[in-house]
Amino acid sequence: MTNFKEGLKAVKAFAFDVDGVLSSPEVYLHPTGEIMRSMNTKDGYAMQYAVKRGYPIAIITGGNTPSVALRFKGLGITDIYLASSYKMDDFKDFLFKYDLKPGEVLYMGDDLPDIEVMKTVGVPCCPADAVDEVKSVAHYISPYSLFSKGISNRTTIRGTKAVRNATVRFPTRNCFL
Amino acid sequence: MTNFKEGLKAVKAFAFDVDGVLSSPEVYLHPTGEIMRSMNTKDGYAMQYAVKRGYPIAIITGGNTPSVALRFKGLGITDIYLASSYKMDDFKDFLFKYDLKPGEVLYMGDDLPDIEVMKTVGVPCCPADAVDEVKSVAHYISPYSLFSKGISNRTTIRGTKAVRNATVRFPTRNCFL
Amino acid sequence: MTNFKEGLKAVKAFAFDVDGVLSSPEVYLHPTGEIMRSMNTKDGYAMQYAVKRGYPIAIITGGNTPSVALRFKGLGITDIYLASSYKMDDFKDFLFKYDLKPGEVLYMGDDLPDIEVMKTVGVPCCPADAVDEVKSVAHYISPYSLFSKGISNRTTIRGTKAVRNATVRFPTRNCFL
Amino acid sequence: MTNFKEGLKAVKAFAFDVDGVLSSPEVYLHPTGEIMRSMNTKDGYAMQYAVKRGYPIAIITGGNTPSVALRFKGLGITDIYLASSYKMDDFKDFLFKYDLKPGEVLYMGDDLPDIEVMKTVGVPCCPADAVDEVKSVAHYISPYSLFSKGISNRTTIRGTKAVRNATVRFPTRNCFL
Repeated sequence: MTNFKEGLKAVKAFAFDVDGVLSSPEVYLHPTGEIMRSMNTKDGYAMQYAVKRGYPIAIITGGNTPSVALRFKGLGITDIYLASSYKMDDFKDFLFKYDLKPGEVLYMGDDLPDIEVMKTVGVPCCPADAVDEVKSVAHYISPYSLFSKGISNRTTIRGTKAVRNATVRFPTRNCFL
Repeated sequence: MTNFKEGLKAVKAFAFDVDGVLSSPEVYLHPTGEIMRSMNTKDGYAMQYAVKRGYPIAIITGGNTPSVALRFKGLGITDIYLASSYKMDDFKDFLFKYDLKPGEVLYMGDDLPDIEVMKTVGVPCCPADAVDEVKSVAHYISPYSLFSKGISNRTTIRGTKAVRNATVRFPTRNCFL
Repeated sequence: MTNFKEGLKAVKAFAFDVDGVLSSPEVYLHPTGEIMRSMNTKDGYAMQYAVKRGYPIAIITGGNTPSVALRFKGLGITDIYLASSYKMDDFKDFLFKYDLKPGEVLYMGDDLPDIEVMKTVGVPCCPADAVDEVKSVAHYISPYSLFSKGISNRTTIRGTKAVRNATVRFPTRNCFL
Repeated sequence: MTNFKEGLKAVKAFAFDVDGVLSSPEVYLHPTGEIMRSMNTKDGYAMQYAVKRGYPIAIITGGNTPSVALRFKGLGITDIYLASSYKMDDFKDFLFKYDLKPGEVLYMGDDLPDIEVMKTVGVPCCPADAVDEVKSVAHYISPYSLFSKGISNRTTIRGTKAVRNATVRFPTRNCFL
């Protein structure tokens, strides 16, 4: 994890997959047939805070649900790549726009389409329930998972505190908890 | 389970019950009084993937909720039998339409109305919390259940991986996890 | 529980409280500010089944949410007492309408306003998390509770089977599971 | 806790943060992109009961979701401070309006913006998963947390009973359970 902490110092931007990272696979069907995803407001606060401090944030997702885009826009995020069929292209677009090098980005993903980007970034992260191929390239594997509702509160509290007191960095639920 | 793996090789189509198989019994009431069912996007991806690879998929449910039909249509599924009072009739209709033999179909159900169809198909499956009568005719009983939210992540990950690396087949949450 | 099983034989009708019995205290806020309650479709099927077999069912609740009434109407229930300030009055109305004696009714409640009715009915029931005063007058305390999401699947399955194979009676989640 | 019980006797009003105290961090996205928060109807009944008994209640939240305001208005609460950037200002406004001294207020919060107010009130409370800085100034830390869905029913029942039989006071889920 020294690798991870060293990498954090160089981070100038963040990029996230959505499903499995910022939203849960369990959804409810609205009467219109649209799916309603579950998210965590603590992740929302963290991203909002990062935006205010000037960090560019990219959302790169294969999904194409308008409500997801609206939610992230509401948090002040402007770089939202929906229906991303090849994430590397969208990631390069994000790097170009903000004049960033891959090593300056923290990326969090959980599945095969995320791997190519994860291999290039400075801080590749994943949740506890990412597929093994993703885990093998991650520098940091969060003990927290969107699947695990039964996780002890203590972990959550400690994680949040760690971010606040120690790194004063980007405290998303999955990244640092 | 050799029986099960052998049967999988002959599978050319899939058929699913909805309640208890693809959706949870816990629902939320929309202000209009309509019920909002919980589903799993990983099941959705799996079915979408199967459709793209050319597998016919039938949804055969006693329920009659428009949102359910809309959701499955959105995944590319065209054979949706709502308000099915006698599932065998709808199943035969599905077989006829695609010129299929019962032994070429994987079916997953969890309750009494599913049993007759399950006795005829090549690969009858059920979730862990199916009623005993259904379990006794299933060739594969998923360790996962829609009732069990506390299931370990590890199981989920292993299941997904098993499908991807080994069978390269139809990875619904309940079928192969 | 001999008392309970004997009582069941005389049951000709059912009456239910809603909050804590048929719906969970955890709700979601719709954007309009209306609350969306969680219910269980297995309870819904059970009530629908009882209605079809000719059992009168009363819903007697202090709440006044239109979506709740719409949901129960959709199940074929016609005797829905919303905003019930004194449940005994509504219960008497129900008895009078169907020419029933209190001893012929199974009632399930969980809180103080339910006690007076429970003391008069033939089969007073309550969920596991009812208040102690209610538990002390119940002939049957369900091991299942709306608060307990982590309950083992096995219990649920066993309960359903007990209803089907043994009593062939009214299988609501809380009553007999 | 003697401190806590003594303080309760002087309580003439209540003030609450929302996120993490009265609502859960897990939210669902409505198709419009609005977030739908989870609340507990038992908290709602408790606040409604307190309002009827004449207790002023303030809701002081940094959030600005209309549905939250509508929900609390529906419970009879009139002092709802949304988008509160500095909670002490809104708290002082509440005190002035009802001619209250800080020592006469029970306040429950869970995060850094709540601390200044908590240091001045008679009964500062927090849920089990509040940040450590908040816990260190609380006179009462609820064993219940919005994060913990798996909490035993027994605790919930005992808590409710304690409020009813002993204090006949304000039984919110987090405050006294």
